[in-house]
Amino acid sequence: MTLMLDEIREQPEAVRRTIRAERANLERVAAEIRRRNPAFVVIAARGSSDNAATYAKYLWGIFNKLPVMLAAPSLATLYHSAPVLRNALVLGISQSGESTDIIEVVRGAREQGAFTVAVTANGVSTLAKVADEVALCHSGEERSVAATKTYTTQLAIVCLLSALLADNAELLGALERVPDAMAAVLQGVDHGAERAERYRYMAACAVIGRGLNYCTAMEIALKLKETSYVVADPFSTADFMHGPIAIVGSDFPLLLFAAPGRTYDDTLKLAVDLRARNAELVIFSSEPGILDLATVAVELPSPVAEGVVGEAVSPLIYAVAGQAFAHGVCITKGLNPDQPRGLRKVTLTM
Amino acid sequence: MTLMLDEIREQPEAVRRTIRAERANLERVAAEIRRRNPAFVVIAARGSSDNAATYAKYLWGIFNKLPVMLAAPSLATLYHSAPVLRNALVLGISQSGESTDIIEVVRGAREQGAFTVAVTANGVSTLAKVADEVALCHSGEERSVAATKTYTTQLAIVCLLSALLADNAELLGALERVPDAMAAVLQGVDHGAERAERYRYMAACAVIGRGLNYCTAMEIALKLKETSYVVADPFSTADFMHGPIAIVGSDFPLLLFAAPGRTYDDTLKLAVDLRARNAELVIFSSEPGILDLATVAVELPSPVAEGVVGEAVSPLIYAVAGQAFAHGVCITKGLNPDQPRGLRKVTLTM
Repeated sequence: MTLMLDEIREQPEAVRRTIRAERANLERVAAEIRRRNPAFVVIAARGSSDNAATYAKYLWGIFNKLPVMLAAPSLATLYHSAPVLRNALVLGISQSGESTDIIEVVRGAREQGAFTVAVTANGVSTLAKVADEVALCHSGEERSVAATKTYTTQLAIVCLLSALLADNAELLGALERVPDAMAAVLQGVDHGAERAERYRYMAACAVIGRGLNYCTAMEIALKLKETSYVVADPFSTADFMHGPIAIVGSDFPLLLFAAPGRTYDDTLKLAVDLRARNAELVIFSSEPGILDLATVAVELPSPVAEGVVGEAVSPLIYAVAGQAFAHGVCITKGLNPDQPRGLRKVTLTM
Repeated sequence: MTLMLDEIREQPEAVRRTIRAERANLERVAAEIRRRNPAFVVIAARGSSDNAATYAKYLWGIFNKLPVMLAAPSLATLYHSAPVLRNALVLGISQSGESTDIIEVVRGAREQGAFTVAVTANGVSTLAKVADEVALCHSGEERSVAATKTYTTQLAIVCLLSALLADNAELLGALERVPDAMAAVLQGVDHGAERAERYRYMAACAVIGRGLNYCTAMEIALKLKETSYVVADPFSTADFMHGPIAIVGSDFPLLLFAAPGRTYDDTLKLAVDLRARNAELVIFSSEPGILDLATVAVELPSPVAEGVVGEAVSPLIYAVAGQAFAHGVCITKGLNPDQPRGLRKVTLTM
């Protein structure tokens, strides 16, 4: 048993707790955002938190019509020339709340007059102190270096805030059904290595997801790099077609996240193309149509809601399946996911 | 001789031509941007053009205090829910001007009332027609599938517009000295394979650059993927420290772009760390201090200007050295860079 697997298993409860505990707080934050009516959103984050920011970019674009940009922290920390953020909503996402560069972006934005929110698992951290408001990830302490439950609770915060801001009961209802779906995914998982054995000697791969699940591709690629030292390069389906697809020769391994929804047809088309190139496909989906094309099919539960709402919350569910797979690759390779070489739990960068 | 190498060599003239030919036009566009005073900038692009957009994110942040976001085109094309862009400056960057998703973003933004600019090598393309204004890349026809001169002329447009918008004569002067520096880089290059032989069997690598040269890391990683099928994963120095550095074991190859400037110290520190891990380092720099740490040192000319201005134009010069190296890897591997498998010159995605 590893800490990482323990924490993967804690996610249904951690997400359930976060949704319940933060609802009233985020109702209030949403009201203040509505009052301020920001022209755009800036999110500062690193590592897994940056992938949660990418989720916000799509989700808030779709459900809140908000343009979201990922901050380039070095503008503030190295170039000392932060852009004008007066009319922005600025979020800092950091599990520890102690990432120096993220703190700098949020502090500077607040000084400019922006409305700032800290998304963190540590309510007494520096980040929590410098921001106007705090959205707390009720993940409990994360002991594994590889982030899992802090990531999915960040997604839960992003989704909860979106639903409250849009007053979208359907999205809120779907989010509340997510913990059960996560638990269903975990029921089929022992330590994740069952399906991963085939990838004992995988050195590199591509990880693909689009739109709302682009974040899933990025996050699972990061898990593979951190824990299994696989050079896992993440792409959106569309970006992949614009050049990188050339890396795909016979036997080249790819992970595809194919949740039903607006991006499904594109991903299915890509899977057909990749199959024709004799690529090795690990496909995560609830849909038999695309799972039939897989070398290794990871079948996921049906969406918790119809259409784009079901797709909107799918990144929380698909992340769990991807994490378990990455954990399995790591175990199969005889590595320890809790102590990746050259990493500490909190990384300080400027 | 390959088309790609021909076109790499054409870059000093293509950039010189672009700066001269577009100056008056962009003076006018800059005046209109000043008048409209956009709250933020959105750039829609794919592939190499997306890397030019990343250059704009840093350059315009530093010199124009403009917050820049990269568009998520699928919000418009698949989710039919584009964010509110009324008060934005919206750029579409596309060599051919026929990327359907980029056209959709620009068309939709203009309908919302945003001021829109097409950056393209084709002044009669659909993109040029749907935008309010056109900034033309005077690259001449690009015949190789791998973009080279269209990329650097896009950077030239981004830099020229920044200098004119900020009325920054120093930046403009530095940009005007870039073509000579590019030519100096090319003088040392035969077909680029001299230094690349060692990488005949390289299957994967990381490519690293920070701040203004993050775009260089992304673009050269893309060239390696497109032409040599190397799984080249690009990172900013800071993002790399937050997890991905775990992939670096003994012998793992990394390319580092280390232009002097605000990001140099961080990159030097990383190089020292990587050397201690017995990594294989290909370092592109003008600085002996970091070149001494390299397995293969690619020495570049001194900056064309002091401090951050020199760093600001360095991505045009460092791109040329990186392109030549990627071309060399391709030739060493016995591949044809002009006809990568599975790619066409214009990629249509939605």
